Amino acid sequence: MDVARRDLILSAAALALSPRAFAADRPNRPLGYAIVGLGYYGQQIIIPQFANCQHSRLAAVVSGDPAKAKRVAAEHGLPARSIYSYANFDTIRDNPDVDIVYVCLPNSLHAEYTIRAAKAGKHVMCEKPMATSVAECEAMIAACKAADRKLMIGYRSHFEPFNLEAMRLARAGEAGKIRYVRSEHGFVQGDPSAWRLKKSLSGGGSLMDMGVYSLQAARYMTGEEPVAVTARESTDRSDPRFTEVEDIIDWTLEFPSGAIASCQSMYSANQNHILLMGDKGRIELEPATRYEGNRMWLGRDGREREVTAPPGPGKTQFAGQLDHLVQCVRTGREPIVSGEEGLRDMRIVEAIYRSAREGRTIRLDGRA
Amino acid sequence: MDVARRDLILSAAALALSPRAFAADRPNRPLGYAIVGLGYYGQQIIIPQFANCQHSRLAAVVSGDPAKAKRVAAEHGLPARSIYSYANFDTIRDNPDVDIVYVCLPNSLHAEYTIRAAKAGKHVMCEKPMATSVAECEAMIAACKAADRKLMIGYRSHFEPFNLEAMRLARAGEAGKIRYVRSEHGFVQGDPSAWRLKKSLSGGGSLMDMGVYSLQAARYMTGEEPVAVTARESTDRSDPRFTEVEDIIDWTLEFPSGAIASCQSMYSANQNHILLMGDKGRIELEPATRYEGNRMWLGRDGREREVTAPPGPGKTQFAGQLDHLVQCVRTGREPIVSGEEGLRDMRIVEAIYRSAREGRTIRLDGRA
Repeated sequence: MDVARRDLILSAAALALSPRAFAADRPNRPLGYAIVGLGYYGQQIIIPQFANCQHSRLAAVVSGDPAKAKRVAAEHGLPARSIYSYANFDTIRDNPDVDIVYVCLPNSLHAEYTIRAAKAGKHVMCEKPMATSVAECEAMIAACKAADRKLMIGYRSHFEPFNLEAMRLARAGEAGKIRYVRSEHGFVQGDPSAWRLKKSLSGGGSLMDMGVYSLQAARYMTGEEPVAVTARESTDRSDPRFTEVEDIIDWTLEFPSGAIASCQSMYSANQNHILLMGDKGRIELEPATRYEGNRMWLGRDGREREVTAPPGPGKTQFAGQLDHLVQCVRTGREPIVSGEEGLRDMRIVEAIYRSAREGRTIRLDGRA
Repeated sequence: MDVARRDLILSAAALALSPRAFAADRPNRPLGYAIVGLGYYGQQIIIPQFANCQHSRLAAVVSGDPAKAKRVAAEHGLPARSIYSYANFDTIRDNPDVDIVYVCLPNSLHAEYTIRAAKAGKHVMCEKPMATSVAECEAMIAACKAADRKLMIGYRSHFEPFNLEAMRLARAGEAGKIRYVRSEHGFVQGDPSAWRLKKSLSGGGSLMDMGVYSLQAARYMTGEEPVAVTARESTDRSDPRFTEVEDIIDWTLEFPSGAIASCQSMYSANQNHILLMGDKGRIELEPATRYEGNRMWLGRDGREREVTAPPGPGKTQFAGQLDHLVQCVRTGREPIVSGEEGLRDMRIVEAIYRSAREGRTIRLDGRA
């Protein structure tokens, strides 16, 4: 066997065994995403973003609504073989066009479809919240690890220019010693029939949805992991929207440095805000984590000036997020917002619910 | 005895027995204030405000520093007999120029001087916080009641145009159903030798000082009394400023309507903010409770517009506050921010400290 032929066989073996090696062989080929769930977020927000990507492309759609799937596929030039139902989803393993499965389903289905995708040999992008429990998150991480697949959570703020610049400024000491972070996220959830309000689908109320932004903000603005959480809930159970899940959750995180984060989520008022206070000044984002139109201010002694941020890693935060996982697949790096990151949040989410239920501070650092 | 002579005697008797009747006899005479404590607030902030008053005038000063007292008295044309020390303060009973004593001393002296003033037959304006404990507040109220004197707390926000307009708008439903109030007050307390940082003088840290603004805001913006409080403290005890009192306190109040208030006070960052969120919009003040330069915004769906407020009851919030007590003395009305109002706050302040200490929610409504 000559050297060239041996190399070819080794390459083919590597190709068969390792999509990472496969990707490395063809570094410029955009990787293909299958979008699982053609609800508002998957269909209206994510799919149009492939036009802004450098390394990612739409390769398949998965939906329980054949007509919708067919229409979306046609709009984006996908062949019929790239349309899946939930029943035949597992056959996606045989589709070489699909490298990554993006789970855009209601929260309670995240674990199942992440695990099925990993078992089908696909890398996974999973929308936030990662799942509805710590146990599910652990199972998802284990499944992806067993399949040697990447798992990334759709924490788009980590690819959003203002949030990235705010993190950089906070680390650079722009506000001085960080003493206090506040983040509030909410919107008026009007429709009582929304899946978000069904506990079996959402796993919880505003905390599971908008609250994850506030929690993430507290962690990435301080750059610390909380050691204790104290939470309260307020829900009008006579409101037909809130028979199953909570409306308002208010929680306080304590960090090792002594910084405090006060966070809220709610389904009865519109807000989208991150504030960091240090002993020398403040960094404020409002709106903070919208799809677009976010703004940032810096201030000292109450005088704030609006600032811009340098461009983020992608043309949009969504494109940056989609392309990041592709780059991780190609290079073998862990995503900056991995499954472990989602699990960290879910541990805190469970502690927030527990603290509110029990009316006491819950330690997160194992101390009594 | 003819009718004219009898009337004269009765008037003289009324005059001797009742300053209220006395005041009623001479409705246009400004009432005289004795300022107790010539620290920054008494000397620099309050005394200059008499120039803005319609019904109040400076009548005496009380200080432990004879030279300072003499200088301030001279600046304001006060006779030597209107200068008091703490030793001879009780002789103020014999000074008919003094109708009201304004206690501008460190917190731990509020109770003593309020009670001594009442016993000297004077009405009392007491700076916030009313005192350092519920027990002191109760003793102050009892002393003023026994002496039939008015007791008012220096809650100037109730005379500040933007805060008054915000309360009116909140009650009028501008933001819809009130779901959430947030208030943060703090400043960087730099000097480790400040009296505010000595527990024997202040009774506590940022909560006793700036925290009272946040607490007041939560109550007057919702128009409700809280039923539960959950609090956390964060203080760097290795910081020489914080060997005795707390730096940051973060607390959540729950109201009967289901509204939540998230409040903070701190000595390690500058902030001055009130936000009310309803299901239809928001009312925001920032700065909210400064001596001057406060601003207000109204918003719906994230679009905020700055608004002005109609003039308040006085030329300034301070003048409105000073003149209000005079009007109450004249008419017999209770001040809108009476001793009972200060006591309500102090009950909550004690519960905040207790909640932070015990790491659990404290009910304020007697429920288990």
